[in-house]
Amino acid sequence: MTAFTVHSVSGTARRGTLTLTHGSVETPAFMPVGTSATVKGLTPADLREIGAQIVLANTYHLWLRPGRETLVELGGLHRFMAWDRPILTDSGGYQVFSLESRRELDDDGVTFHSHLDGSTHRFTPENVVAFQEALGVDIAMMLDVCTKLPANTAEVEAAIRRTTLWARRGTAAWQRGATALFGIVQGGTDERLREQSARELVELDLPGYAIGGLSVGESRAEMARLTRFTAELLPAAKPRYLMGVGTVRDLIAGIDSGVDMFDCVYPTRSGRHGRAIARAGEYNIRNAAYLRDDGPVDPDCSCMVCTTFTRAYLAHLFRSEELLGPRLLSYHNLAALAALTADARHAIAADRWATFRDGVLGATAAAS
Amino acid sequence: MTAFTVHSVSGTARRGTLTLTHGSVETPAFMPVGTSATVKGLTPADLREIGAQIVLANTYHLWLRPGRETLVELGGLHRFMAWDRPILTDSGGYQVFSLESRRELDDDGVTFHSHLDGSTHRFTPENVVAFQEALGVDIAMMLDVCTKLPANTAEVEAAIRRTTLWARRGTAAWQRGATALFGIVQGGTDERLREQSARELVELDLPGYAIGGLSVGESRAEMARLTRFTAELLPAAKPRYLMGVGTVRDLIAGIDSGVDMFDCVYPTRSGRHGRAIARAGEYNIRNAAYLRDDGPVDPDCSCMVCTTFTRAYLAHLFRSEELLGPRLLSYHNLAALAALTADARHAIAADRWATFRDGVLGATAAAS
Repeated sequence: MTAFTVHSVSGTARRGTLTLTHGSVETPAFMPVGTSATVKGLTPADLREIGAQIVLANTYHLWLRPGRETLVELGGLHRFMAWDRPILTDSGGYQVFSLESRRELDDDGVTFHSHLDGSTHRFTPENVVAFQEALGVDIAMMLDVCTKLPANTAEVEAAIRRTTLWARRGTAAWQRGATALFGIVQGGTDERLREQSARELVELDLPGYAIGGLSVGESRAEMARLTRFTAELLPAAKPRYLMGVGTVRDLIAGIDSGVDMFDCVYPTRSGRHGRAIARAGEYNIRNAAYLRDDGPVDPDCSCMVCTTFTRAYLAHLFRSEELLGPRLLSYHNLAALAALTADARHAIAADRWATFRDGVLGATAAAS
Repeated sequence: MTAFTVHSVSGTARRGTLTLTHGSVETPAFMPVGTSATVKGLTPADLREIGAQIVLANTYHLWLRPGRETLVELGGLHRFMAWDRPILTDSGGYQVFSLESRRELDDDGVTFHSHLDGSTHRFTPENVVAFQEALGVDIAMMLDVCTKLPANTAEVEAAIRRTTLWARRGTAAWQRGATALFGIVQGGTDERLREQSARELVELDLPGYAIGGLSVGESRAEMARLTRFTAELLPAAKPRYLMGVGTVRDLIAGIDSGVDMFDCVYPTRSGRHGRAIARAGEYNIRNAAYLRDDGPVDPDCSCMVCTTFTRAYLAHLFRSEELLGPRLLSYHNLAALAALTADARHAIAADRWATFRDGVLGATAAAS
């Protein structure tokens, strides 16, 4: 049920279409994150209005609450959250490894304790794929082992060994039905290990590949270098997904490395805290400078928030701790990234990617 | 700029149209409360979709933040909050008297300390009217003295004496421009004092009258009795507004007493806490019974929330403390009261009010 077509390339950036069970995704695309079956504060109608083509949800969180039985009984994740376009679920690997003292890892899988009630659960490569398939998502992610950075070589080697082992088992368990399965390349900051991880996963001939284990503590330059290095190891005919990336500069760097898909909580999390993403640079709406500013959040944006409300009004909402503030700024921040990727697609199609890239980077650099 | 027409009467309930500077309001009407220039969690587009005809904001809160100067500089309250339909502002009397130890009352006005930063402010009957006029609202409320219940006769007598004194001064200061001015009848639970307060205010021939000082500690039966008693003292040709009332049963009782307008934080506050208002009775969406319930929040409702999401999804959102939960349930609760008043208007116009009233009261009584 997956097809990926690259329509045009400009420099090393690419413009494509990913066709999934619930619709197609024009790439490069940013995917809003709806961890617990909700993009915080926003409705599916908002997301459609913003131009979101696909949203993320998280296996770890949904496994614990509301749980597989409820989700299946209620007709799957799409019906549950009333979103009829594509959904990608993360495998929960990242979340489980973040639990640290609350999980125990072996070759067969990982046992962990719920952060909600301490109850014991076990993820295996097989049951994580089966869970995502049962939810009826468009893209399932493989259970992987993600190491925090910095990490020593032995740790990273152990992680990629298990990541490959689990990817083989996950692939064998995969039903190859409505749900596509993506592999996740690990390897920390070590090029040799990134190369090994990519090679072993590419052998499985999966519908798509993610670049995992980045944006987890390394420098921005390291991330850019490893993104480019890893992207080049992945098959050109398959979609490439850089996990956990969601600032304007990082999206531009990722697209420039030939990445097609991105996700990050950043636009919604920063929006909830008053941080506005504008094409000319980010800023905090709580700043006193905006209290009487009757301009829009981002003069370069034509979203509902920017065409309806002023900076002064949003500053007032945030200073008054009003619920509407986080909602409106999350909406705008997602709309800003949707517009950025739409503009990138146009620029690539017109083969003027480098000009577009340099323009965006110049504007954000001047502002910061 | 105000006109009020009563189109039909059924029993003692009435169906009318109130024409204001920013549009007309079909009565009986429930007015959502947007204390700090925002109905918590909702946009003006949501409110239009819900069928809200007029919203409330609060003089005390707006006076302190963002303040008169900012609101005037930004083009008035309508532009600030991006709402182009009528706005009524409460005078702030109720809020100031709730401050108790933080305010000092004299015949000329009331000095109080901000709950935000302790700064000192002073309300007089004149400056409260001028503030509301400067904001450009459709209906301003007179500064009044509201006593908590129970209160002794001397306290209530002192309160209505000042309320009348201030109403005369407020009326003299009123510009009689785009902003209509309503008086507020006080008098606690004492019929003689209610009568005196109403008589003294009616002499001022204001565009409308509110029944104040109820829903502040007395029993529901007391409130119903005093609402009916006070409503009958008010001129039939002027709109009657019962302040602070917003449950299904209290709205029905108020309409039955010939009241035309209502406001209350109840539907939004209870919505934020998981309490759903349904025609067949209220309930808490967090209840375990709803975790796998794929029906709508209210089977008798056709709002966006009830036609899009299930009880199970809302139960999940509330249990996960997701922002979207309070937003959706506030939306539904306001839509439920908008539909209730719309249905009441149709019933009155068709002269079948008593049947409608008894049907609604029977359904909610059976459920509780």
